[in-house]
Amino acid sequence: MTASAHAPAPYVRNAWYVAAWSQDLAAEKPFGLTILGEPIVLWRTASNAIHALEDRCVHRLAPLSLGRCEGERLRCMYHGLLFDAAGKVVEIPGQDIIPAQARVKHYAVIERHSWVWVWMGAAETADPALIPPAVGFDDPDYLLGHGHLDYAAEARLINDNLLDFSHLSYVHANSFGAGPQFAQTQPTITPLDRGVRVQRWRTNTFGQSNRKSPVPIDTWQSYDFLVPGVLLMWSGQYKLGAAQALDFAPPVMDDAIGGLNFTSQAVTPLTGTTSRYFFSWGPHRRHGDEATRDAMMAMAGMAFAEDKLMIEAQQRMIDVTADPRIMPTSHDRGVILFNRLVKKLAGDGGEAARDAA
Amino acid sequence: MTASAHAPAPYVRNAWYVAAWSQDLAAEKPFGLTILGEPIVLWRTASNAIHALEDRCVHRLAPLSLGRCEGERLRCMYHGLLFDAAGKVVEIPGQDIIPAQARVKHYAVIERHSWVWVWMGAAETADPALIPPAVGFDDPDYLLGHGHLDYAAEARLINDNLLDFSHLSYVHANSFGAGPQFAQTQPTITPLDRGVRVQRWRTNTFGQSNRKSPVPIDTWQSYDFLVPGVLLMWSGQYKLGAAQALDFAPPVMDDAIGGLNFTSQAVTPLTGTTSRYFFSWGPHRRHGDEATRDAMMAMAGMAFAEDKLMIEAQQRMIDVTADPRIMPTSHDRGVILFNRLVKKLAGDGGEAARDAA
Amino acid sequence: MTASAHAPAPYVRNAWYVAAWSQDLAAEKPFGLTILGEPIVLWRTASNAIHALEDRCVHRLAPLSLGRCEGERLRCMYHGLLFDAAGKVVEIPGQDIIPAQARVKHYAVIERHSWVWVWMGAAETADPALIPPAVGFDDPDYLLGHGHLDYAAEARLINDNLLDFSHLSYVHANSFGAGPQFAQTQPTITPLDRGVRVQRWRTNTFGQSNRKSPVPIDTWQSYDFLVPGVLLMWSGQYKLGAAQALDFAPPVMDDAIGGLNFTSQAVTPLTGTTSRYFFSWGPHRRHGDEATRDAMMAMAGMAFAEDKLMIEAQQRMIDVTADPRIMPTSHDRGVILFNRLVKKLAGDGGEAARDAA
Repeated sequence: MTASAHAPAPYVRNAWYVAAWSQDLAAEKPFGLTILGEPIVLWRTASNAIHALEDRCVHRLAPLSLGRCEGERLRCMYHGLLFDAAGKVVEIPGQDIIPAQARVKHYAVIERHSWVWVWMGAAETADPALIPPAVGFDDPDYLLGHGHLDYAAEARLINDNLLDFSHLSYVHANSFGAGPQFAQTQPTITPLDRGVRVQRWRTNTFGQSNRKSPVPIDTWQSYDFLVPGVLLMWSGQYKLGAAQALDFAPPVMDDAIGGLNFTSQAVTPLTGTTSRYFFSWGPHRRHGDEATRDAMMAMAGMAFAEDKLMIEAQQRMIDVTADPRIMPTSHDRGVILFNRLVKKLAGDGGEAARDAA
Repeated sequence: MTASAHAPAPYVRNAWYVAAWSQDLAAEKPFGLTILGEPIVLWRTASNAIHALEDRCVHRLAPLSLGRCEGERLRCMYHGLLFDAAGKVVEIPGQDIIPAQARVKHYAVIERHSWVWVWMGAAETADPALIPPAVGFDDPDYLLGHGHLDYAAEARLINDNLLDFSHLSYVHANSFGAGPQFAQTQPTITPLDRGVRVQRWRTNTFGQSNRKSPVPIDTWQSYDFLVPGVLLMWSGQYKLGAAQALDFAPPVMDDAIGGLNFTSQAVTPLTGTTSRYFFSWGPHRRHGDEATRDAMMAMAGMAFAEDKLMIEAQQRMIDVTADPRIMPTSHDRGVILFNRLVKKLAGDGGEAARDAA
Repeated sequence: MTASAHAPAPYVRNAWYVAAWSQDLAAEKPFGLTILGEPIVLWRTASNAIHALEDRCVHRLAPLSLGRCEGERLRCMYHGLLFDAAGKVVEIPGQDIIPAQARVKHYAVIERHSWVWVWMGAAETADPALIPPAVGFDDPDYLLGHGHLDYAAEARLINDNLLDFSHLSYVHANSFGAGPQFAQTQPTITPLDRGVRVQRWRTNTFGQSNRKSPVPIDTWQSYDFLVPGVLLMWSGQYKLGAAQALDFAPPVMDDAIGGLNFTSQAVTPLTGTTSRYFFSWGPHRRHGDEATRDAMMAMAGMAFAEDKLMIEAQQRMIDVTADPRIMPTSHDRGVILFNRLVKKLAGDGGEAARDAA
């Protein structure tokens, strides 16, 4: 089976996309980015509300992200049109009458789990229950570091990467150090309503990279990869024999004897060929401290640079290929399940909504 | 009313475009630029004549701006073809016969008011009377500084900016400091044969930015914005009550009691998406000295960077917008009048001439 | 006669293209480049064999040049697929069955005369007898320096430059210093099966640039310019009167009384608009030493930068010209002969092979 790698990726519009880390959105500093190619301005008011509008003034298309916060409103700093949080123009300097069409698109936005999420479907259909259960910095159990990377690559290529961890044996041979045997085994993959679950016991190991164990152990890794592109993973070390005792079912997280840790990651398509990749990582407080977290983040910095190098090179190769086709392997089961789900959800008012926009 | 912001701007071919500051065109140093997308080489001879030709050798299309001046002629430094000032090849090394078609386009060029002007219509139709009455460095009354900025934006966006000074209240809130009330008032706008005149009294002010007054005054500002994109403005401070005494008619320039100053500005379309913006500014000698001029130029440097930031961001937003439409406001009267005039003049042998080229 | 300069250049597929200097291909360091727009990975094994494959994994199109050498094989370092030297996948981690279509294109490759040559036609048609007789660093007679330059220009423009040395009088007025009279004379041009031969006596000269003679001499220069774009030239100084005594026939190389030297140059089209230019140059050991070679290479560095400046400017001018046409001169005889030959050879299974690829 082969599939074209070049057909434009479908994206789910009725989903929450990560737009920023909470702490990167300072009060009264409008912030512009594009999501799915749509220019969006986000701002946090002095009263700590967050608003999101189309980043393009109705008058002459200047970006509102160069604008000025005035209470709950945002003023375009080209000729001074003032917008309310719903996108309606409420003042045009030197003009008394404001035309009815003087408004820009408004986006639903929610701050949760230390991320600012934007709903890319119609604002009135936004469903907060669909925000993935990430772990934020306010979580009492985990001690997280965080960062983000911009990619000159389509978001789907990053999703595909995160859905097949067999690349750990090769891309990350020098960092995470999973060893070649890792790619020889298959994880358990379970379809979810809004994603896939990927789980894997490794038995009789000594841990890996900066979470080595002096004695043989079993290790467990479980992640959900959720629409539109959010990875939530916990991993831990268990007593040797734990896997077998459980008949390879998932362990109780708290039974971990070491190395328990969590990571949230989110892939946001900026345009069809650029993406922003957000990530946090860190130990459970029972299994590490600030130094552990910093060592893990240093490792992540190295590993994520390895991904970026490979994926951007892959994108450039796709770009110069007339009819780029992929040849899936047995490790692509998660990739295929997830992309099929995205296609289905994009069809349910996703693509259609985009065409109508 | 809405209008597409994306239709390619029409430009007037039968007009003089500023190609360079006089002093930037050193003798026997060929200088290449494009105007309206056409590559042009300019050179000043040892005898101080200035010539302008198509910047593209007939042989292999090498730029003549990499060439060598030889008297009134210019030699292509790839394979040595020699061109006279009318664009005719007069020597081909190693070849006796010169084909009749061995010639490049010749442009009419005039040096005046410290600027080098190129006529973009047919050279034989060039009319020196159409050169706008700018003020050069040789003017005995004014003490001028000068500069230029390159824009990654269509020239029309810069013209539009200069035709609606209400942006002073916003773009230049931190530099020129006109205050928000400036954008609340409308100037008087008068159509001219080759442009529009924009005039404005402000009464009972204390001046602005680096031309403050200790006592209340009236201030006057008048500019002509002329085809293809030349702004000529003088401003001055008058006795409190002067505006009312004149029934808001223009004052006699010499009656100014302070701050009398002049600026010439010119916008030249290099390509459809890039422009060069030339400007001079400075005080009347009765109202300032070199220090005044330098302070004004420092202010201009700050303000013009504000314009460039906004306009290039506007251009990028237009570029990613499928069907960019503007929604004019009451302040767009000058913009609309001028663009209508450009369209009319471009139609009179302008666009037609371009298509036939 | 005029000809379009913009029609895509035809290239000969059944030809050897220089891909690298031998010493730049270190053992077990895969090296990626494109030739004729095709991504190719080259690698030298520990056993000193050189292999060349399509630089694009069948799985997800990651470049194999980011891969790892394993004996005679190359492993993709994204998900670990292993390729043999013929391009066949021999291992897919985690998967037992390897599909028959799991293979990438294989290129014939030969190391000779200090260059690594890649045959761009079907590998089974590769004919080593067609490798041009360049002079490598192992030649006992010549003492050669070498280098390469990347061009933002179509390879044909560099070929054209090398096929008409009249540009020495202009482009290289400040380096090689051939003088304007050089462009006034015509060389003898002879068609060859796979190129053209360009030869020229200059009588009663004092040499040129860094090979001056204290007494008047005759100088001889002869080069073959061979498909796909390889220049092989030797030059030397002969006794005054030698040319006339030979009735302007070629001299015996060894009769040179000074300045005997050799240069190999190769132009490789990376893409339709970028090229890599390889060059060596140096004296015959009887006519110079390391210092002579270094002085010649310094001169070449200056001169080849002059070519690059001119040719890249020419390319940019072609790029902005709607219908770029050239007007050949009498010096273009070699250019025309060679390009006609290329067109003919490209037609003989060249273009056709490319379309079928």
